[in-house]
Order: sequence, then structure tokens, then C-alpha cells
Amino acid sequence: MMKKVITFGEVLMRLTTPNFARFSQSDAFNINFGGGEANVSSSLAIMGIPASHVTVFPDNDLGYAARTTYLKYGVGTEFMQMKGNRLGIYFVENGAAMRPSKVIYDRFDSAFALLNPADFDWESIFADAQWFHFTGISPAISASAAEACLQAVKVARRMGLTISADVGYRKNLWQWGKKPSEVMPELISYCDIIICSKGDANDMFGITPNDEKGSFKSICQQILTQFPQARFVLNTKRGQISASHNTLSGQCWNGTEMIKTKTIDIPNIIDRIGGGDAFMAGFIYAYITFQDIQKALEYGVAASALKHTVEGDFNLATLQEIEMVVKGDVSGKLKR
Amino acid sequence: MMKKVITFGEVLMRLTTPNFARFSQSDAFNINFGGGEANVSSSLAIMGIPASHVTVFPDNDLGYAARTTYLKYGVGTEFMQMKGNRLGIYFVENGAAMRPSKVIYDRFDSAFALLNPADFDWESIFADAQWFHFTGISPAISASAAEACLQAVKVARRMGLTISADVGYRKNLWQWGKKPSEVMPELISYCDIIICSKGDANDMFGITPNDEKGSFKSICQQILTQFPQARFVLNTKRGQISASHNTLSGQCWNGTEMIKTKTIDIPNIIDRIGGGDAFMAGFIYAYITFQDIQKALEYGVAASALKHTVEGDFNLATLQEIEMVVKGDVSGKLKR
Amino acid sequence: MMKKVITFGEVLMRLTTPNFARFSQSDAFNINFGGGEANVSSSLAIMGIPASHVTVFPDNDLGYAARTTYLKYGVGTEFMQMKGNRLGIYFVENGAAMRPSKVIYDRFDSAFALLNPADFDWESIFADAQWFHFTGISPAISASAAEACLQAVKVARRMGLTISADVGYRKNLWQWGKKPSEVMPELISYCDIIICSKGDANDMFGITPNDEKGSFKSICQQILTQFPQARFVLNTKRGQISASHNTLSGQCWNGTEMIKTKTIDIPNIIDRIGGGDAFMAGFIYAYITFQDIQKALEYGVAASALKHTVEGDFNLATLQEIEMVVKGDVSGKLKR
Amino acid sequence: MMKKVITFGEVLMRLTTPNFARFSQSDAFNINFGGGEANVSSSLAIMGIPASHVTVFPDNDLGYAARTTYLKYGVGTEFMQMKGNRLGIYFVENGAAMRPSKVIYDRFDSAFALLNPADFDWESIFADAQWFHFTGISPAISASAAEACLQAVKVARRMGLTISADVGYRKNLWQWGKKPSEVMPELISYCDIIICSKGDANDMFGITPNDEKGSFKSICQQILTQFPQARFVLNTKRGQISASHNTLSGQCWNGTEMIKTKTIDIPNIIDRIGGGDAFMAGFIYAYITFQDIQKALEYGVAASALKHTVEGDFNLATLQEIEMVVKGDVSGKLKR
Amino acid sequence: MMKKVITFGEVLMRLTTPNFARFSQSDAFNINFGGGEANVSSSLAIMGIPASHVTVFPDNDLGYAARTTYLKYGVGTEFMQMKGNRLGIYFVENGAAMRPSKVIYDRFDSAFALLNPADFDWESIFADAQWFHFTGISPAISASAAEACLQAVKVARRMGLTISADVGYRKNLWQWGKKPSEVMPELISYCDIIICSKGDANDMFGITPNDEKGSFKSICQQILTQFPQARFVLNTKRGQISASHNTLSGQCWNGTEMIKTKTIDIPNIIDRIGGGDAFMAGFIYAYITFQDIQKALEYGVAASALKHTVEGDFNLATLQEIEMVVKGDVSGKLKR
Amino acid sequence: MMKKVITFGEVLMRLTTPNFARFSQSDAFNINFGGGEANVSSSLAIMGIPASHVTVFPDNDLGYAARTTYLKYGVGTEFMQMKGNRLGIYFVENGAAMRPSKVIYDRFDSAFALLNPADFDWESIFADAQWFHFTGISPAISASAAEACLQAVKVARRMGLTISADVGYRKNLWQWGKKPSEVMPELISYCDIIICSKGDANDMFGITPNDEKGSFKSICQQILTQFPQARFVLNTKRGQISASHNTLSGQCWNGTEMIKTKTIDIPNIIDRIGGGDAFMAGFIYAYITFQDIQKALEYGVAASALKHTVEGDFNLATLQEIEMVVKGDVSGKLKR
Repeated sequence: MMKKVITFGEVLMRLTTPNFARFSQSDAFNINFGGGEANVSSSLAIMGIPASHVTVFPDNDLGYAARTTYLKYGVGTEFMQMKGNRLGIYFVENGAAMRPSKVIYDRFDSAFALLNPADFDWESIFADAQWFHFTGISPAISASAAEACLQAVKVARRMGLTISADVGYRKNLWQWGKKPSEVMPELISYCDIIICSKGDANDMFGITPNDEKGSFKSICQQILTQFPQARFVLNTKRGQISASHNTLSGQCWNGTEMIKTKTIDIPNIIDRIGGGDAFMAGFIYAYITFQDIQKALEYGVAASALKHTVEGDFNLATLQEIEMVVKGDVSGKLKR
Repeated sequence: MMKKVITFGEVLMRLTTPNFARFSQSDAFNINFGGGEANVSSSLAIMGIPASHVTVFPDNDLGYAARTTYLKYGVGTEFMQMKGNRLGIYFVENGAAMRPSKVIYDRFDSAFALLNPADFDWESIFADAQWFHFTGISPAISASAAEACLQAVKVARRMGLTISADVGYRKNLWQWGKKPSEVMPELISYCDIIICSKGDANDMFGITPNDEKGSFKSICQQILTQFPQARFVLNTKRGQISASHNTLSGQCWNGTEMIKTKTIDIPNIIDRIGGGDAFMAGFIYAYITFQDIQKALEYGVAASALKHTVEGDFNLATLQEIEMVVKGDVSGKLKR
Repeated sequence: MMKKVITFGEVLMRLTTPNFARFSQSDAFNINFGGGEANVSSSLAIMGIPASHVTVFPDNDLGYAARTTYLKYGVGTEFMQMKGNRLGIYFVENGAAMRPSKVIYDRFDSAFALLNPADFDWESIFADAQWFHFTGISPAISASAAEACLQAVKVARRMGLTISADVGYRKNLWQWGKKPSEVMPELISYCDIIICSKGDANDMFGITPNDEKGSFKSICQQILTQFPQARFVLNTKRGQISASHNTLSGQCWNGTEMIKTKTIDIPNIIDRIGGGDAFMAGFIYAYITFQDIQKALEYGVAASALKHTVEGDFNLATLQEIEMVVKGDVSGKLKR
Repeated sequence: MMKKVITFGEVLMRLTTPNFARFSQSDAFNINFGGGEANVSSSLAIMGIPASHVTVFPDNDLGYAARTTYLKYGVGTEFMQMKGNRLGIYFVENGAAMRPSKVIYDRFDSAFALLNPADFDWESIFADAQWFHFTGISPAISASAAEACLQAVKVARRMGLTISADVGYRKNLWQWGKKPSEVMPELISYCDIIICSKGDANDMFGITPNDEKGSFKSICQQILTQFPQARFVLNTKRGQISASHNTLSGQCWNGTEMIKTKTIDIPNIIDRIGGGDAFMAGFIYAYITFQDIQKALEYGVAASALKHTVEGDFNLATLQEIEMVVKGDVSGKLKR
Repeated sequence: MMKKVITFGEVLMRLTTPNFARFSQSDAFNINFGGGEANVSSSLAIMGIPASHVTVFPDNDLGYAARTTYLKYGVGTEFMQMKGNRLGIYFVENGAAMRPSKVIYDRFDSAFALLNPADFDWESIFADAQWFHFTGISPAISASAAEACLQAVKVARRMGLTISADVGYRKNLWQWGKKPSEVMPELISYCDIIICSKGDANDMFGITPNDEKGSFKSICQQILTQFPQARFVLNTKRGQISASHNTLSGQCWNGTEMIKTKTIDIPNIIDRIGGGDAFMAGFIYAYITFQDIQKALEYGVAASALKHTVEGDFNLATLQEIEMVVKGDVSGKLKR
Repeated sequence: MMKKVITFGEVLMRLTTPNFARFSQSDAFNINFGGGEANVSSSLAIMGIPASHVTVFPDNDLGYAARTTYLKYGVGTEFMQMKGNRLGIYFVENGAAMRPSKVIYDRFDSAFALLNPADFDWESIFADAQWFHFTGISPAISASAAEACLQAVKVARRMGLTISADVGYRKNLWQWGKKPSEVMPELISYCDIIICSKGDANDMFGITPNDEKGSFKSICQQILTQFPQARFVLNTKRGQISASHNTLSGQCWNGTEMIKTKTIDIPNIIDRIGGGDAFMAGFIYAYITFQDIQKALEYGVAASALKHTVEGDFNLATLQEIEMVVKGDVSGKLKR
């Protein structure tokens, strides 16, 4: 039995207006559940990698509905706590053409934000695990979430897990008293793989390009210098043609060279939310399976592209579909 | 131009699973908006009585969607503030037969709960008004909401408005530090008309029946003694045959006698939430129009019965429909 | 091959708010098509009696959509004209409990109302027919519709068809210049079977009960006297417990005695519109099949009861289902 | 950790027309999954009893969708095989009032029907189990399903599990060559608890009442005589007022006396399919928990009544809701 | 308080088949309301410009539903009359790719068409107004609508309002007896701003290009000569790549030069109806705000482009979204 | 009266997840009916060519629902048998961008597959017919279907009908014992017009290109040599840009030259299934009407392109719409 991937983070109920309707005109919401880290677990479970998600759900019918959704897709729920009062929510209005999609968060004082770090026995959680993934969202939510994150990475490091972190800066969060620059560097110092954009590097670590071209490479070099544990810095490049049409590629600095994928065209987007998490899951799947960064990036980009064709945070693309795109078949030809 | 009725209280977004679905199985919510006091304003506006609702909505797309819903039905929105971050929510699962409807509230730290009492200029608000209605929910929400309520009743009293209060005890609220018995008596002391059940009388004022039969009359007498400003104590009696079938009647103690309505049968219930508010609106409409308690109660009960046939918090029954039921026609005969 | 039943009358597009929603709150309509006479044809076709409907549809996509609906259920469309500009519409809001269903008609100047009587070659239409059915709605619509009706009954009489007429008085119609009492007696004088309530008898023929009890029998006797061609006067009695619960029975005066059915209880009504037409179809089916008035009435009432469980004007009940109710089985027991 | 309940049987995809629509008029189906035995497992899992279902799903997207539905509600899926080509289907049209619900089965040659008995290692399956439940549907499907059933009861008997069987005769099945009377007696001879109606007793065992009253008791006595291993014979009595309104009670012969429950009124039925399975699950839950037949019957009837208020085969009623009904509260009063 | 923009014209109920369904296959319509002039008012109200619409609605539930829709979006309804019998309707089938969208009008004899010009007190209506906008549709509907239009422009001119007219020729209208060339020139002679295509100029005024290139400029010059009051002639140019993909630009002749906007690409169109009205509202907003034709055109084109991404006649784009497009950001990048 | 086109083949119920949902996430299916040959009949009937389809439907509510769908669109149903137990089904998940659409078939042992060849009286069926069309799917289903096909072509040949065959190889079928190469050549030997791709030619006839370029022409030449009755070999070329964007052109070898159409761009695909059948119907329509291969191909490609914009197997495009595309207008410009 393969060892598990463990993810940690808040799960939100996602309420989306149907058929691209605006908030001002809709009289219904579609219900989904998602979270930057849980999306990675669900993607991995669908691809066949054992994955468990660690979180806190409120002890009410909404919390149970959320949990059963992860059960349904095969995510391990053994470390999910049912405790507290509210499930964080985010509202989504899907855009089209030049009209952007909009997200409204309503997540303060959620069961997750009010977690007790002492409730997590990380040694048990990681007992059967090979990889730990978290994002910059969790430490941004509350002091206790940041504390739980820190405990997690310390134990994961000690127990020898591979640790990946998606350093995503969310300016609406970080309201609990500390700035990201006071919190993130310590967390990241335990990580092997860092997903980080130029903007994140500046917001989180105060790192700006130090070469003339303002290259991403120069940022990666500084990150690897500042965080010697880290081996890889990853990023995706999204071409934003319209709300309905993007392009996507990935790159990774391995300390020596910048490994790049081809660019995939993503027309007729159905739902782009969760695209970054799908990339991460594709990357982890392929890295675990092939130990090959180029392949891992290609799987990540293919998985992410397919996610744009699926409604909801979960990437319901199958491994076969991802591999078809990895092989360059983006024709979408009918399968009978 | 008739003088306005003013209502004050929180408006929540109501998210209801369609077609009686359980929370655990639904993948969509229908969106409505409602609140115990705003429901009275919307009902009155539909019946042709000018009514404005005073509240605070968050300054985001959801707050604007809520406000426009009141605009749509003719409620005055001139005293609605757009300020703060979150709109309180309540989730509803409609029951059937022996399965109860369920409500989950998610309303803490809403824009309304965090209101600033100084933001309300009650003298302007009441300038053109004849009636002020509030409920026991508002003072239960937060210290500042309770404070705003108190300022409102003081000014309303001074300016000579008729004041009505629905003393509804909600045990899940009242978490801001004071008990209802420390807050409600002062508020109620300014009121002319008090809607109060036996249970509420005990929870809010510590009043229990002092005759052998444990009669509602004995409670009313004590209330009128404790609150000399008050002229009427009202109540509705709901016969709970099943989640799909109720009966309803109303009664009012006027200091001398207990005035009662006939009992209306309410089969095939579509949505019972807001039934009490519909009663209140029917009562206020008829009391303003006819100055007759018996008529006011009959309109209240008829309006409430009709509310059970309409989805959402708003009572979309028209005056003609209410009057048909007041006249005893509950045949539901097709109108061509 | 059995000879056809021919019906003549306007078909309207019926737009119904879904899920009992009120007009003021709905953002969608369900689409059905129906008409008092066409509903008889569609019911008969479903029961296996060849039936063709004569009408005029506008020559546009809506007219074609209407016509194909009749094709689908096996109604003969060979005498439907595609001509003119507008399809009459009626809007329906389904009631519940004490809230009545509401109908708004929008049918003036429809393709049918503007028909040219010369367009109908009644001798061809009736060439292969045994029965002609019409209602008091058609002559109420326009002078030309009344004229076509008159030509039809004259030819039908001459060609020996059985003629039935549902004398339904619609006070919103009859705006083309003549009163029903100037038009209907001549039309009815050609009929064998008259469906007529007490109210209709008064509105259409000025006939009121002439016995002390104000009996329906006394009306029937006067009708048979006034219209010697007629053999039977039928009526249904609807008990109107609520919009969701009716009872139904039927009766027929055959010149000698009043034949009556048992009363069927109709709880949990889904859609009562078309119930009278379903009765008529059930009656015609059984009268043609068994030549027995008691049976014809029982089939009529059973068919009508079942219609209340089906959304739309069409009675989609099968012959087996109708016969089960005729036999007294109203248990609704699951059929596997 | 409590020992598991194991159920064995086919799972079908259930396709139901929405909103009581007839097959002839619907343009959509709602998707659910269910099966007489799997419904017992899912009910038990929701009530907190560990339960695993044994079945065969086709190895395609529909099979996976079915399986994840059981995962979602906490049913153990470790003994579900993914093998074969087709998922059995049943089509449902919900009735109302006197119109019956209709079911069309399309289940021949399904992955389950074509199962290989050798694929089931019953000793492993029962290793951690206390109870085995099956129904008369499985042996009716195919020779191999009957064979698997026989192996299962033999092993279960040997390993000391409690065995319950719902002896439901389905006349449309049993097409594989043997008659029920050739197969069922042997299977039932291993059982402790037999659910059996008068009709089933005749169809399956040729047992008819042998007393003057034609009592159910006389049937039970004969069953216990014929099957000495059996301790209890259970049955439910359904009062069929209409498709929308039933009553339900339960009874059990324990060899000495006929234990009976009160009768529960079930108005406003939403979906009655799975009601018998919900009874069985409620019975098993309470029997395991309290070792008390009266209580077990009461839980069974309460659970079954609540099932009628939930769309789909699964009984999504919670333990608290069931216990409320057991205690006699069928008021359906709103829970805030 | 800014002075109001007043619009005048018919409002129709718009019934659209959902999900691009054809009329022949749809069993539902989505309900919206719209009209060429009312769409301008609603757009302006959403952008924050006080705007009132003058029209006649039938005095029935459909008329009230229409009116409340304008109330909802903040349009002034104080000059809407509730009178007459029918609400005009238009049916829409949305096209895709090479399949065109189709519109069927059903608007004859509507409450608006039968308006009484004497019912409008234009001096009161314009008392607090700065701008009057109408279109060539109103005078095309009926003699009385044309008469009301004429009275309106005369009063508006006298009271010094800016008057804009969208000269749109609709060949299906103009059936009341006069040709556009007999009516429109007088109406247009009072206008400041004329929206007019090449085709309209010919149909309405008999003006054709008089230079070799057949330029739009030559048409504008002739219009300004014929109507000396006019200052600007506007037009939009729609590139029709497919039903799902258009391009749009705008131009304005100010008597001296042809001012032009950039061309905006509009892929993945959701609903193009109302695009011209959205242009007009954007133009009026920016002209009032900035007194700058170039800016006004750019706002118009940006507003119109965004309208194509919103279902329904109303342009629910916000001012910020329009300004983002004006600034050239058409990336549709997710807003968190 | 024009002579009929006769088609023969299985009709399946098509169950499609709405809104591009994946099988694993959908809780509903949209219902359509279709089949490669019946799609040709329905298309032709909509274009005004009399067409009857020959098939077997099960004698249950689903079979009747299927049949009435053909009635609705004007297809002759006089040769449809109602016999047998199951309706074949196919499940569809619509793809988008690089995600392919998926089809799952569930059609074994259907009423059609179990047909009795003796039930078809081909002389009567062809009595009033000019054309017979079938496909390679029917002989692939079962021995009896293949036998019926053979009898049909023999009779059709003898009676002088034009015979067309779409030689589509489906690798999932052909499980009844014979290989296509044992069955198809005889069937095709009776045909005038053969629709055949390169792959089909190899799979069915073992024909591969025999020139250096591997040209389609070389295949056509071999086919015409092998089947001297045949006059034309047709094919369409689909450019597969993505699941949402295809291109289409057609070609025909007439024995002398390769006639080709222009290529049509098909963006924003709604539903591509049935595209090939729509081509065939367009071809037959135009060939019958104009006796011109170039025109027939152009009509075929235009009809097929329009089919991609319509949900369901049926091509609901009208003749006018097809002719607009034939004339080169693919602008999708709004039709008022």
C-alpha cells in the first residue's frame, strides 16, 4: 500500500450562481465544497494516490454534508474534526468574455479559524504518510491556524515527509495580527517544494528580482538561498485572454535550470477555480510516480487545463484523461 | 398620504434546499431574504401601507441583492445602511409529514450585529411615521443592536408612534453578555402592543400563569400590570398536526376580555416560515384601517394562513386574497 | 377502423409558474398547450379513440410547437390550419390550501379568433366521423368563430353525427357584440348531449329552477323541452374543500331519471385545469364503447379525478388507470 | 469497535421523473441509486452502525458513480467488485392521490446478475461482522446470484452471525429456471429473522393460513415450524389510503405472542420506495442496540415513516429524528 | 441631487427558452422584462444616474410583476400607469455559432399601444429632469403612442432637456396607418443626439450617402443639415463573426469630425439583446459626467460589450466593470 | 404526394448529464431519443420530405415515450412495432475544450436486437417509397437484425428504391458471432450510395489505399469496383480543434471526380452527436430535390454544422436555416 499524502487547510462551502448569472439576478446557488489544500487531496484520490485531508468542520448538517463530499471522492476523512459552529463560505459568480468571475468570501470565525492546535496529533496523522502539502492561506486565517501549520511542518520534517507549500498571498486575509513576513519564512524553511509567483515572493518574503530582466529565475535563486531545505521552486503562467479563454504553462527551477512545459490553450472555460490546486495534484502524482520534474510539470499543467472544464473545485478528470493531454492530444474527440 | 410604518431588524439571506431535499442530499439552494421585522414591512407594502425598514446591509453584492429585493416589493429602503462585511445567513430544509423543517443560523458578526447605534437618526426616521414595530430578536443579537433598539423605542414613544413588539425568545441568541430579563423589560415598557406566548413571558419577564388553569389570560393580566403603557397582548395558537398540516387562530387580551378568532385549517403547507410575521402585518394593516381588534386579529390569522402557501419569507398574498379568507372563503376555488 | 371524434376550438399556450410560485416571484414558466375542446381530443386519442381537432394556429414557431404537441399524443392534425399571427396565451399560477389558482387570459385577436369560416370544409371534416364536440367558449370568442360553430353543427346534424356541447359561460369573453342568449340557443338546438351547470343554464338560456328545491332536475327538464333534439343533460359536482383537495361526482338527466355516480375524493391535487374536459372525454369514450350512461358517467368522473394528478391540460391517464378507478380502486398502490 | 452488519444484493440506478411527471411527458430523470439490501446498509451507516454492502458494479463510469454514492453515506465498499458491463436500472414515476406510482425494471444481464460466486470470499467478508441481511430478490435474479446467496448464508451460519431475510416475492424475476419454492426454503432454513407477508408465505413456501380467521399468526407458526432456526417472523402493515397517504404499523411473532406497534399516519408522501428497507434498518439498529423486539419494531416503523418524506431509496433520517417519532412526536414542529 | 434622465416606451415581457433550446423543443421559458428605452433607464440607474421610465402596464399580475422589476433595479416608477389589459410579449430563442437567435413579437393591442396621450403630464414628468430619451419603436406602435411621443419631445424641447433618439426602423411595426417618413422627421427635429444607422437613415428619412464611397459621414452631414437642432449623430458597428462571437465599435459625427472608438472583441456571447440600449446608457452616463464625446463613446461601447455577458435585457454591469473595459482591460481576470 | 424515404434501425433512449457535468457528479439526466437511421428520418421530416422509420420498441411506457417523440416531429410511425422488453440506452457526458465527450452504451438484448425478421413485410413498407437508408450499426447488433437488413435491401433493390448505407464500424458491437467482413459486403452490394471513411473501408471491406499518397480517392475507386451497383462514395472530414470547436467539409467520388464542399467552422458546439446523420439527411433532401451531388454535399455539410448547435440527436434546423448556411451566411445574425 502506497503511503499517504496529507493535506491541511480550511474547506469552504462554495455557492455559485448557475449559468453565469450575476449575484444581483440569481435566485439560486449551486453547492460545492472546496479549499486550496483539500482540492489537492481530492484530485490525488481520484488519480489513485491515497490522500487524507486534515481540517475542522462545524458539528452541524452543513459540516456533515461537506465531510461526506470528501468521503464520496475517496479522500481520507479520519483526521477531520467535527467541532464548532460555522462553515466558511465563498460565493462565486462565473464571468464570461471580458466580465471577470467574482468571489466573495465569508469565512471569518469559522470552525477552522477557531481550531485548537492541541487537537491535532501530527505524529499519528503522519504515521503512514509520505508527503505533506499546505498553502499560505491557512496561516493567514488565524493565529491558531498558523500555529497548527507550524507544528505540522516541524513534525513532518522530523518524520522525513516531503513537504510542499503553495505560497499564495491573499490580501483579504492576514487580519489576525501578524504580517505574512513575520510568519511565512519560518513555515517555508521546512519545505522541499515551493510554489510561488513573483508577486507572492515579494509579499511573503520581500524578495524582488535582482537581475536586469526582472526574471523569475532570479527570484527562485534567492528563495533557494534563503530556504536551504528547498529543492524546487514552481510556478504556473496563466495567459488571460478572457474570462472564457486562458492559456497555461508551468515552470520549475531546480537550482540549476528552469524546466518548462509547453503552453496549453484552454478555450470555453467552464470553471477556472481550483486550477492551481489541480496543477499541484498533478505535479505531486507524477513526482511520486516518476520522480521526474519535467513529467511532474507536464502532468500538473494537463490536470489544471482539464480542471477548467469541470464545474466545482474538485478536479474530476481521470488519470487517463490527464495522460491523453500530457501526450499532446487536446482534440477533445468523442470517446464511444 | 398615509404615515409610514417603520420596522427595524436584521435581514438574513435565506438559503433553502429545493423540493424538501435534506441538507445531506441537496446540490442547490434557493435564495430568499427575510427577517422577522422586514417581513412585516414587505407584507404591509404589498397590502398598500407605506412601510420602511431600517437595517444594515454589508457593502457587497450580496447586501445590494438583499436591498433590491425590498425595493422590488415596495418597501422603503431610505434608512438602510450599506456598511460592513457580512450578511447573516440562515439555511432551511423544509420538512414534510412527521419530519420537521430545520433551520441552521449563521449570523454572528454580521453587518447588522456590528451596527453603530449612532448611525441611526431616529427622529428623521420617525418624522413621517405612525407605527414602529420591532421584535425580541434584535436586542438578542448584540449589545449595539440592543442599544439601537432602546434608542428607537424612546424616540418613537416621545414622538407618539404606536409601538408593537413581538417578544420572541430565541435561545441560540443572547450571547453578547446580558440576559433577556436584563434587557427586554425596559424595551417593552415603551410598547403599546405586545405579542407574547406563554413561553416567551416566562423566558423574557419571568411571568408564569398565576391561576389554577395556567391560563394565558392570567399572563396577559400580569403583563399589562407590569407594563402600564401596553394596551394589548396578542398571541397566535398553532395546531401542529404535521409539518405539512397546521391550524391557526389568534387571540388578544385588551385588558377586559380575550378576543378570539376562528381557527383556520392549513393543509398542504408550502412554507411556514414567516407565518408569525405575516400575522403581525395583517394585524397592523387592519388595526390601522379599521381600529378594530377583532378585525385586526382576523386579518392577521388570514394573512398568516395564506403565507403558508407561498415560498419565501415574504407574504405575497394580496389584500383581496386575505379578505376572501377573512370572509370565510377557504375553498381555494380557481379564479379565472 | 372506428369513426373519428371531431373537436373544434381554440388552443392556447399555457404558461404556468413552477412549484406553485406566484406571478410576482417567478422567473420561469412551464409551457403546455391546451383548450377545452382539444383536451377532449387528446384524452380520447390516448384512450385509443381516433380523434381529430379542428383549429387555427399562427404560422410561426409557436404555432408549429403547439401543433406538434397534438401530433405527439396522436391527435389528428389534418384539419389544423397554419395561418395568422398570434397564438392565444393563458397564464396559470397554481394555488394551494386556501389560496386559489389564478388564470390570466391573453387571447384576443388570436389566429383562431380571426378565423375565416369559409376556410372550413365541414363535409370533408366530418366525412369519416361519428361525433362532434364543441363548447360555449368558441362562439364567445368572435363573430367568425361563432359562425364557424354554427356551420359545423348544421353539417354535423345533417350528416348524422352525435353532437355534444359543454355550455360553459365565460364572462370575460363575449365581447364581440352579441350576448350568449342571442347565439347559444340556436347552436344548442342541434345537440344531442348538453353539459350544463345551473349557472350556465341561467347565463346562456335564462333557465332557472322552477321547483321549490331549485333542483338541477327542473333545469334539465326545461332544457330538454327547449331543445327537443337533446337526449341528455350532464353535469359534474365539484366539492371544493381547498385548492389542494376536491371531490367530484357526475350526474345525467336522461329525460326520465337522474343517473348519478359515486363521489371520488381528490386529495393532493397537482393540476386541476382540464378536469372538466377529461370528464367529457371519459364520458365520450365509454358512451361510444358501452352505450351506457351510467358507465359513461363513471368513466368521466374517474378520468377527471386522474387528470388532477397530472400537470398540464392533457389527461395522460391511461385506459387501464381509468378503469382501475372506475372499479373503485383509488388506493394508488405502487405498480411494479 | 462494533462488529459490522453485512448486506448482499444488487444495486440499481434509479431514474425518477421529477415533480410527479408521467413517463410520457418528462424530459429529465433524477438519478439515485438503491437496492433492497443496500438501502439497509446505508440506513444503518447513517444511524451509526458499521455496515458494508457486498455487490458487483460494472467497471464503467456509472458503476463508479454508484459506488461513490455508498462511500458518501459511510457504507463500507471494501467488498464491492468492479466488474462487468451493465448497471441494472429501474425507472420510477411517482404517483399522487389515486394515481399509482409506477416502476419499470431494466435489470437483466447486469454485472450483478452475471456475478461469479467464486469471487466472494465470505469468510473474509464476515470476519468482522455480527449480522447478515439479504432478501428474496437476489436468488430471483440468476442462478449464480442464488448460488452466492446460499454460500453466504452457510458461511454466516457457521460463523455465528445473526441472519435476517426479507422474503419478498417479485413475480417479474425468477426467470432463470427454478421456482422460488425450489430455492428459498433452503436459504431461509439458515435464518434467524424472517420478514414475510401472507402473500410471500404462499408464493415462496406454499404456506397458507390454517385457522378460520386466516390469521398472520397461523402463518408465522407454520414458518417457525418449517424453519426451526428462525426465532422471529416480522411483517409491516401498510394502509393504502392513496398514493399520497399511507399508514404503517409493524408486528412480530416471537413464537409465543404477536408483538405490535402503534400505527403511524404518513400523509403528504414524497417517496415511498425503500420504506420496507428503512423498516428493516430501524429494526436491526434497535435490536442490536436494545435487544428488545418491541423497541426494534417501533424503531423500524418510525424509520420507515420518515423514509416516506425523503426522495430517493436512502433513508436520510437521523437517529434523533427516528427517536422523536418513536417517542410519539409526529408533529413535525420546526427545529431552529 | 442630480437631475433625472427620463425614458419613454413600451416594456415587453421577454420569454426566452433556456440553454439555447429551440422553440420546438423547449418546455419552459425564462422570464425577463425589457424595452429599448426602459433598458436605458435601468442601465443608468445601476450606474447611479437617477432615471425614471414612462410607460403603461396592464392592471394585472403580469403588469405588476413587470413594474416591480424596475423598482428592484432602482428605476423611478412614478410615471408608470397601471391600465389596460395586456402586456406585450416577445419570445426569444438564443442562437449559437452559425444559428441565429430568433425573436417572435406578440405586442399588438398592448396596454402601451392603446395608451391615451392625455394621460401623460409631460411638464410634471420633466420637472426634475435633464435628459429625455426615446426610440423609433414607440411612434411605430400606434397613432396614440406616436402622438404621446410628439407631445413629449415638444415639452422636453421647451423645458430645455437634452433629447436623444435611437432611430431604429422595425419593419414589422408601423402598421397603424402612417409611414415612418410621415412621422419621424418631425419627432427628430426636436432632438440633440441622433442614433442612426445607414439603413435607418434611408428607411426613416430617405437619406442615402451622397459621396462616392457611400460613407456614413455623408449621411451624418445630411442629417445635421435636415435637423439643425441636432448636434451629434451616433452609430455602433457590429462585426458579426457568429451568433456567439461579435465585435463592436462606436462612432460619432459631431459636425466636424468622425470620432471613433477602438473595437472590442466579444467572444462567448451569453445574450446580445439589449446591447444597443446598453451602449446608449453608457454614452448618456459618460456624456453627463464628463461632457466628452470620445469618453461617452468609449463608455457606450464598453457597457454594450459587457451587456453581451449578462442574460436578460438589463445591463447588470457595474460602473467599475465598465470603467475597467474602458481602460482596456478585457482580460476577465478573476476578482477575489 | 412525394414518395417516402424509409429508414431502418434501432432507437436508443439517450440520457445526457446537463450542463457538461461529469457522470460522477450529476444527479440528473436529460432525456432524448435517437439512432443513426431514425435521426435521418426526423431530419428529413422536419425539412418536409415524407419519411418513415422502421424499428421495434418495447411494449412499455418508455417505448411509447420514444415512439411519440417521432410522431411529434412528423416521422411516420406506421411501421414501428411495440414488442419486447427493453429500450436500448446510451449515456452521454458532453465534453468541453480538451475534455472529450463520453458515450456509454447499454443496448444489449434490446427489443430491437431481439427482433424477428419475419415481422417485417418489406414489400408493404416500401410500397410508397423512393429511398431506403440504413447503417452498419444494425447488422452489428444481432444476427436477426442483420438478417432483417439483408431482406430489406433485397426487396428495396427489387422494387427500385435508391439505397444508401452509412458504413460505420462500431468496434463495441459485432458480438453476435460473425465479423463485419462476413456480413457487410453482401449488404453493400445492393447499395447506390455508400458513406464510408478510410477506417471503415478497412474494417468492413479490408480495402486500404493503393496509391502512394494513401488517398481517399483510391479507396473510393476500389469500392466502386467491388460494388458495381454503387454510384457514389461519400465522406465528411471533421477537423477536431477541441471538443467545443470543430470544422467540417464533405466530399464525394462519383466515379470520375472528387466533388468537395467548402469547410465550415463550427465554434461553440452545443451537441455534436447526430452530426453525421444530419449530413446524410441534408444530402438526401438535396439529392432528391435537385439531383445534384455538389448541392447535396453542400446541404449535407450545412445541415450537419447546424446540428452541432442543437441539443439532442434530432436536427431541429429548418430548411431556411440550412439554406442560409449553404449560401455562405454563417454570421448567426439575429432574426427579428
